[in-house]
Amino acid sequence: MERGGYRILKLYGLKEPSIAKVLRDLSKKNDGITRESHPHLSENHTTISLQSHDNSLAEKKLDRAEKEIRDLLGPYIFASGDQSMEDLVGTMLSERDLTISVAESCTGGLIGDRLTDVPGSSRYYKGGIIAYSNQAKIELLDVSPGCIEEHGAVSDQTVREMAEGVKKRFRSHIGIAVSGIAGPDGGSREKPVGTVYIGMSASEEIFSAGYCFQGARKQVKHNSSTMVLDWVRRHLNGDPFLPGL
Amino acid sequence: MERGGYRILKLYGLKEPSIAKVLRDLSKKNDGITRESHPHLSENHTTISLQSHDNSLAEKKLDRAEKEIRDLLGPYIFASGDQSMEDLVGTMLSERDLTISVAESCTGGLIGDRLTDVPGSSRYYKGGIIAYSNQAKIELLDVSPGCIEEHGAVSDQTVREMAEGVKKRFRSHIGIAVSGIAGPDGGSREKPVGTVYIGMSASEEIFSAGYCFQGARKQVKHNSSTMVLDWVRRHLNGDPFLPGL
Repeated sequence: MERGGYRILKLYGLKEPSIAKVLRDLSKKNDGITRESHPHLSENHTTISLQSHDNSLAEKKLDRAEKEIRDLLGPYIFASGDQSMEDLVGTMLSERDLTISVAESCTGGLIGDRLTDVPGSSRYYKGGIIAYSNQAKIELLDVSPGCIEEHGAVSDQTVREMAEGVKKRFRSHIGIAVSGIAGPDGGSREKPVGTVYIGMSASEEIFSAGYCFQGARKQVKHNSSTMVLDWVRRHLNGDPFLPGL
Repeated sequence: MERGGYRILKLYGLKEPSIAKVLRDLSKKNDGITRESHPHLSENHTTISLQSHDNSLAEKKLDRAEKEIRDLLGPYIFASGDQSMEDLVGTMLSERDLTISVAESCTGGLIGDRLTDVPGSSRYYKGGIIAYSNQAKIELLDVSPGCIEEHGAVSDQTVREMAEGVKKRFRSHIGIAVSGIAGPDGGSREKPVGTVYIGMSASEEIFSAGYCFQGARKQVKHNSSTMVLDWVRRHLNGDPFLPGL
């Protein structure tokens, strides 16, 4: 029987080659620990493992190896082990007795789907509006027609109004919104496919930022949903959001 | 180089052992064709393959084998090859110039997510309301409080009102709604975990039925989303819905 230990650290927001380089550099000291980087949808799962006959020594070595990685990549590590981003966000909202509602455009329902994969999510997830058309953004989220006309549906201004609108509709503590161009069509020179804006209304403040994600339609959707969940996590932690456009 | 042919038929609504039995019986004649049944989330993918040096003879044999399966399992086969349920439903809606909107409760956004995985879905998918609470069902979908009080949020009556409500909100041709108990909590003796009601408002008519799905939370959600899409497909084809509770 093999013995030793195995850990998973889950990262979001840093490109895979950068993570792999850090792990490669750490592995240069040949301490018997295997550090691997595994792209997983929009996330990255980093594994640290060690085979050893002495389990307690192995745990100590893994503690040290984990700390080294956390020191270098900490801001991107959102969870470890089996915990998913949606589990984590759900636990954080629950513990603080906060509720959330989501206005989804380009993600089409994926954020709500992920939030409701967690048992008991009805405690903090009040619901969402999937506003796939401008008309729905105006009628169901109280976005002003002038805002869409002037700035476009994929803009800081529109996602801010969407976030406020959904928060009011559901009377939740946090309202979050996403609007973007998932592709393959709909891109322009100014706003190429993958351009996504996120807005958040929480604690009397409104935040927004734009991002540009790589990949095909489903990847843009998944990345957008993870970024939204990461925003909630960072907001509740008091951490800065990942830098945008 | 291996030659011959390979086909996939996609089925929904028939239990895997029943499909496997049909394939086993057909394979008894030892015609060299391999028939296999692969559970795939809430669907079943049946493959038919034949190795042969004569491709045109292989195609003829596969045509015959496919016809035999279609004769026996036709009502459950929704697509073949790479086409997904959401691709198919999207194509059918597009061709008929129809629009759809969805009121989601237990699926939490999964139906919208699947519909919007298809490029160009903004042409027919107008959006959705994820009404995870009774309050949202009442305020955003115009469900009458008395209906929920008398029949419960998971009932024929409530999903009918949800379907009408979402259709009106989005002014779509078809409104479809789903409300159920995804678990692990929330079940009762009368309505155990897995109980899901679907309602549809289309062509001046309202339909509804209840189902009971097996499995854990994510499986109940996925099965519900596929049943909803299958309802749209069957409605547009003029086929009867799968029998409910």
